[in-house]
Amino acid sequence: MLVVGSVAFDSVKTPFGEADEVLGGSATYFSTAASYFTDVNLVAVVGEDFPEKHINFLKSRRIDTTGLQREAGRTFRWKGEYGYDLNSARTLDTQLNVFESFKPEIPEKYKTSDVVFLANIDPVLQRDVLHQIDKPKLVACDTMNFWIEGKKDELVKTLAEVDVLLINEGEVRELAGEPNLVKAAKTVMAMGPSTLVVKRGEYGALMFSGDEVFSAPAYPLESVFDPTGAGDSFAGGFVGYLDNVRNFDGKYLRQAIIFGSVMASFNVEDFSLNRMRSLDYKEIESRYREFMRLTSFEDIAR
Amino acid sequence: MLVVGSVAFDSVKTPFGEADEVLGGSATYFSTAASYFTDVNLVAVVGEDFPEKHINFLKSRRIDTTGLQREAGRTFRWKGEYGYDLNSARTLDTQLNVFESFKPEIPEKYKTSDVVFLANIDPVLQRDVLHQIDKPKLVACDTMNFWIEGKKDELVKTLAEVDVLLINEGEVRELAGEPNLVKAAKTVMAMGPSTLVVKRGEYGALMFSGDEVFSAPAYPLESVFDPTGAGDSFAGGFVGYLDNVRNFDGKYLRQAIIFGSVMASFNVEDFSLNRMRSLDYKEIESRYREFMRLTSFEDIAR
Repeated sequence: MLVVGSVAFDSVKTPFGEADEVLGGSATYFSTAASYFTDVNLVAVVGEDFPEKHINFLKSRRIDTTGLQREAGRTFRWKGEYGYDLNSARTLDTQLNVFESFKPEIPEKYKTSDVVFLANIDPVLQRDVLHQIDKPKLVACDTMNFWIEGKKDELVKTLAEVDVLLINEGEVRELAGEPNLVKAAKTVMAMGPSTLVVKRGEYGALMFSGDEVFSAPAYPLESVFDPTGAGDSFAGGFVGYLDNVRNFDGKYLRQAIIFGSVMASFNVEDFSLNRMRSLDYKEIESRYREFMRLTSFEDIAR
Repeated sequence: MLVVGSVAFDSVKTPFGEADEVLGGSATYFSTAASYFTDVNLVAVVGEDFPEKHINFLKSRRIDTTGLQREAGRTFRWKGEYGYDLNSARTLDTQLNVFESFKPEIPEKYKTSDVVFLANIDPVLQRDVLHQIDKPKLVACDTMNFWIEGKKDELVKTLAEVDVLLINEGEVRELAGEPNLVKAAKTVMAMGPSTLVVKRGEYGALMFSGDEVFSAPAYPLESVFDPTGAGDSFAGGFVGYLDNVRNFDGKYLRQAIIFGSVMASFNVEDFSLNRMRSLDYKEIESRYREFMRLTSFEDIAR
């Protein structure tokens, strides 16, 4: 599968500690999470300052870095902090650097990708990427309030070509201009995506797909260290699993939501990608089953 | 089973309409919801202005009103409004009236109740009620920030005698003085309750019981009219079902959480108790099964 997004250095402060200039970026979190399920082709851009050790880490996973462009200049940097509620970051500084003029070039060998994830980048670029791919079977994408507010028309054009939209709860309401989530979901699905995954942070995720609705909780964690990258790790588990099974029926979409939730739950346990670096697939399966125990209840006697 | 709480007239304004001086109060919502599962003995107080038709409605359900005291003065009145997010009410006016000097007197025939629900009243009165009952098998209670802030010591004393505490998410954090929900739950359970039900409004409920955690979503509704009484309807479905099965093992606690969620989901579909007035048990069963579809996913191959 193919992912296009950002690779960055993050500086993050939470009530539990801080991390400086650590590996981050939507495509980084996504591809690391997805690499537990499938082979990932990565398209992104870094600057001259991006160390070989990070590229070697990505290569040590099932991630092909042929599409990782290196440009003159510095790598994208983001700095933010979280309060005790950990639900929303306060951005202290954003330096786009080489990301500002990012023109995703899809390597020839990636053009037959069946499954594509367009991380949160300019919707014009998202469409530009799509048009470089031969008939993908599943296109998923993310977006954010910045594009909803600044480039809504372009975003709507992109959504017309997308199968699955992953989006935060507040953003789906904003995009639809509708406070009720169920109504907002219908409005957004009418723009194109047949499946809508609403990310609700510590409250989990809600998936609308055709006439089906599926609700998954977040894993109740005693220590959430750093929520940065949770949404992209979620997307990585979700899309990575779907690419692995190559079946997009409801049964697999639901399982994929749980795998997404599992990867997000691990990711927030430490700064940067640290928890995902040391993860074992057995731990992923074990937490999947904890999600089953967390949500299961018996039918009532008829 | 026995419930002690308030009976009130509510005046409510939401973005979708308004209702004036309609039947409300924690014990009213609770006992109406519970009456779909079991026989309810109601202890509360009303004033001289409380119309016979409301008492007749309660009697038309499986609710015994012997314990509904009528005192000189006016019935408790509450006035509030909700914005589009419907998550929290803004109180415009509270007139305690006869509720101010409420001294719950438990009728002789109620004193052998096996299951007791202490709705959100002064924790001193909650304990006073408990001490009038012969060895109940299950004691559940609700509380609110008003008592956490004003009578915390009394509340803690009451909790030592309680099996199940139902409480809002923000309030459990406040009571524990701990932002992490899992840690806060442990702190509060150390005060007495072996089961803690955290109500999260449109995000559903999380139950901690012994070492088990169970998560249930709220039902995704396209039209939420009036959230007043949702928590008490939830409690009514939860405790009412437990009183019906008389088994407080994990399996039944989980099912009870779903019945609570079902009753809350119906209640918010209309003002006052209107939706619960016209409800059929088949509709309750049918929505229970919709909760199963909403949350179920398959295990992964081993």
